[in-house]
Amino acid sequence: MIHSLSLSDVLADHARSRPQVTAVVDGEVRLTYPELDARVTRLASALQGLGVSGGDRVVWLGQNAHAVLELLLACSRLGAVFCPANWRQAADELRFVVNDLTPAVVVWEPSEATTAVRDESAASARWVRAGEEYERLVEGAAAREFPQVDDGEPVLALYTAAFAGRPGAALLSSAALVAHATSLLVVRQMEPGFTFLNNGPLFHVGTMMFCLATFQIGGTNVFTPAFDPEEACRLIDAERVTQAFLFGPMIDAVAKANADGKYDLSSLRFVAHSAEWDGMITVDDSPWCRSKMGGYGQTEVGGMLTFLGLAEGGAGFAGRPSPLVQIRILAPGGSEVPAGEVGEICARGKTLFSGYFARPDLNAEKSAYGWHHTGDLGRREPDGTITFIGPKLRMIKSGAENVYPAEVERALKSHPAVADAAVIGIPDPDWHQAVKAIVTLRAQATEADLLEHVRTLLASYKKPKRITFVDEIPKRGFTPDYDALDETHGGGNYPGA
Amino acid sequence: MIHSLSLSDVLADHARSRPQVTAVVDGEVRLTYPELDARVTRLASALQGLGVSGGDRVVWLGQNAHAVLELLLACSRLGAVFCPANWRQAADELRFVVNDLTPAVVVWEPSEATTAVRDESAASARWVRAGEEYERLVEGAAAREFPQVDDGEPVLALYTAAFAGRPGAALLSSAALVAHATSLLVVRQMEPGFTFLNNGPLFHVGTMMFCLATFQIGGTNVFTPAFDPEEACRLIDAERVTQAFLFGPMIDAVAKANADGKYDLSSLRFVAHSAEWDGMITVDDSPWCRSKMGGYGQTEVGGMLTFLGLAEGGAGFAGRPSPLVQIRILAPGGSEVPAGEVGEICARGKTLFSGYFARPDLNAEKSAYGWHHTGDLGRREPDGTITFIGPKLRMIKSGAENVYPAEVERALKSHPAVADAAVIGIPDPDWHQAVKAIVTLRAQATEADLLEHVRTLLASYKKPKRITFVDEIPKRGFTPDYDALDETHGGGNYPGA
Repeated sequence: MIHSLSLSDVLADHARSRPQVTAVVDGEVRLTYPELDARVTRLASALQGLGVSGGDRVVWLGQNAHAVLELLLACSRLGAVFCPANWRQAADELRFVVNDLTPAVVVWEPSEATTAVRDESAASARWVRAGEEYERLVEGAAAREFPQVDDGEPVLALYTAAFAGRPGAALLSSAALVAHATSLLVVRQMEPGFTFLNNGPLFHVGTMMFCLATFQIGGTNVFTPAFDPEEACRLIDAERVTQAFLFGPMIDAVAKANADGKYDLSSLRFVAHSAEWDGMITVDDSPWCRSKMGGYGQTEVGGMLTFLGLAEGGAGFAGRPSPLVQIRILAPGGSEVPAGEVGEICARGKTLFSGYFARPDLNAEKSAYGWHHTGDLGRREPDGTITFIGPKLRMIKSGAENVYPAEVERALKSHPAVADAAVIGIPDPDWHQAVKAIVTLRAQATEADLLEHVRTLLASYKKPKRITFVDEIPKRGFTPDYDALDETHGGGNYPGA
Repeated sequence: MIHSLSLSDVLADHARSRPQVTAVVDGEVRLTYPELDARVTRLASALQGLGVSGGDRVVWLGQNAHAVLELLLACSRLGAVFCPANWRQAADELRFVVNDLTPAVVVWEPSEATTAVRDESAASARWVRAGEEYERLVEGAAAREFPQVDDGEPVLALYTAAFAGRPGAALLSSAALVAHATSLLVVRQMEPGFTFLNNGPLFHVGTMMFCLATFQIGGTNVFTPAFDPEEACRLIDAERVTQAFLFGPMIDAVAKANADGKYDLSSLRFVAHSAEWDGMITVDDSPWCRSKMGGYGQTEVGGMLTFLGLAEGGAGFAGRPSPLVQIRILAPGGSEVPAGEVGEICARGKTLFSGYFARPDLNAEKSAYGWHHTGDLGRREPDGTITFIGPKLRMIKSGAENVYPAEVERALKSHPAVADAAVIGIPDPDWHQAVKAIVTLRAQATEADLLEHVRTLLASYKKPKRITFVDEIPKRGFTPDYDALDETHGGGNYPGA
């Protein structure tokens, strides 16, 4: 256990190494690292008193608050698993989460949905109201010593990608979270003194990953219940915030809220966006901020799997792998596809999750051949960078060849006349399936035009045999509703179906 | 094994993600990452052919060369352990290394000492001459697939601190080396394109750690056999080197060699040193370079345990812990000493070694109470930073109290009149031992002056009972020769002796 470093261990070291540093700010609450450490010990003790032990789940149902970080750290100290669930969900969705995770304790803020679910499940889990009841719990508990917990144990559960219509809880260990945080320290060049405004939802890995990287370097996490442009300005100014969870329209909203220059946002070291914005903040030159932010990621890898900042000027739209992972583009049988060809983005490494909670069959499938299968398609470009093609929702089998709809759709959509495209497989007597495209146009183009365009981009067997033009492609979220398209356009014969 | 990331895995990813990047430069040799990967596979295959299998040792006896990195990576691919030994040692010291490690293969450059040891041990190990014979070995082997090796397995052995008169080989796993490299990426803010000149000895962790961090971020390692100021200038200019292994007098030597401005050293992003130097290079503003470089470290923690760059303006001379470790200052019984008091610097975390090769008793002692005991004394300052006091060579027992000679020596040496000081314990009928100081002066001072000075700095029981003034204190390396001092000045009765 000499090599173990759990989130609880990181906190214990910060309490010694950074006794005067502010760990969290949340409204009137300000806690130094020793104060946070002491509260976390008492909270762990209190949770234990409520029956929580190693491997048990604790759920948070509420907006952002410092209690989210405290509960995560207390679960780390206890060896339990913490899940900040999406409080915006409908009662039926929350009911699913509670039935799926069977938590020992739920800390909740009242809403119509949370109240409904609480009334049903108060017998099986202890429900603690956020705010006063939570505070009494922390204050009333006695400090005690906890034995070391191995950092390979899961500590955080985040619900993500729906499988068979219901999301799964991705389990992340302390080791994975510490490794991912460290990769952000590298790419964002975070230093002591880093102050992060947690204004995005903490049930999502995008905000959580920066919260944890800020924690890892011994910086300050500022919590605000939800994004409000004016309040974000006030907090950036008051707390000398280094970075917030902002992109595109959120940046515009903050710039607009501070159009009169009322707030000093110069402490923010962030990505360039607009002349107005760049004039208010300090444009940051770390790899994370210097070019386009981000890369390719998913909850199952702790956040980011690739970084654009590690591939400036690269050909691939997703950049290069994090320094703590390796990536292979694999064919369905587990063999590596050559550079330039599309396959599933697969990974190994320090930041990877420990599987979904209580999904043994899915976990076996996702870790086939010793590689985590992201469920997303990608391609190696000649310079080694990676392009994210799209979700591998399903595969078309044409002869011996695998055809991924997302890849063909991407090729079709690169034609200037194409507004949208979806690709399905239709039964074919000779080839098992044939590729069919459903396309909406924004300008004049014929089937022959589009087929010729695709021919220049893809292997011949991937080219649609037929294209049907429609006014609108039905969607399920961001992706085509393939079931509806199959129904309407004669799809079928999918392998494995 | 989905979470494993060995050095071999990092190389395999670089070969895919950085096909055009130069991995190593060594004289006429230039290898891209795919070329290095292919050579490492063939070398691993060749070593296997010579009888090397999992856990076996491979030794390098020679100056710096790209073969050092190749052998390390090939051992990682095979699951073997690589040791770049100190080729400067005398035959007797080299003989000890070979008898201690019992390597399967030794790759050697001829010198009087290496030739002598080779002639004795050619029967038990396969000796391969560096250069042509090594090249034939690599070129002649066939590529093959190697199964994944767990990153917790030791891969690098570096001889370090002498115990009972002989050094021990600290075993570092891929996981520890990757974690340490990543901590350097954070503190030195290393980015893709980083080019490191390996001009310090690679048998020492100081150069090796930057070689591996450069490898980790997919940068370029330039090798030169040994430090030569003019050649360093030439290589910095020709290869656009970002950083070299330089400090103090080496920097002066490089600046002097380039006094005429013949070489363009502006690619070097390094620490400020002198007006002349700062004018030649680009002064770097990363935490590693911004204040004083370094911190506290040792081979057993992969290099650095604390960083000055994480504690700018801090009170402690050693800075704050690496983001991937935790530190406790422990008393001999394993309890934590309060801030402000001296104890042994102990650590846990991702960068720690796996023990010394074939030293089970020493390993048990060094990992007592679940913490790695560095063998060095330190103190937490009120701001949480750490001060390195000195090696915990031995302890004096005065009554129930522990007195560390290094702490008392440090207090004595802070008096302006004291040139040098050594502290021993002498038998005492009432207190078991009493503290005695041996001091050399550079200016006038009395015993009373020095005792009064020490009284203001240390607890009374640590104050010497008697001070003896001498002309010179006998040394063993950098530390006082305590055995000689005990002999001359009546030392004895040490606990545990």
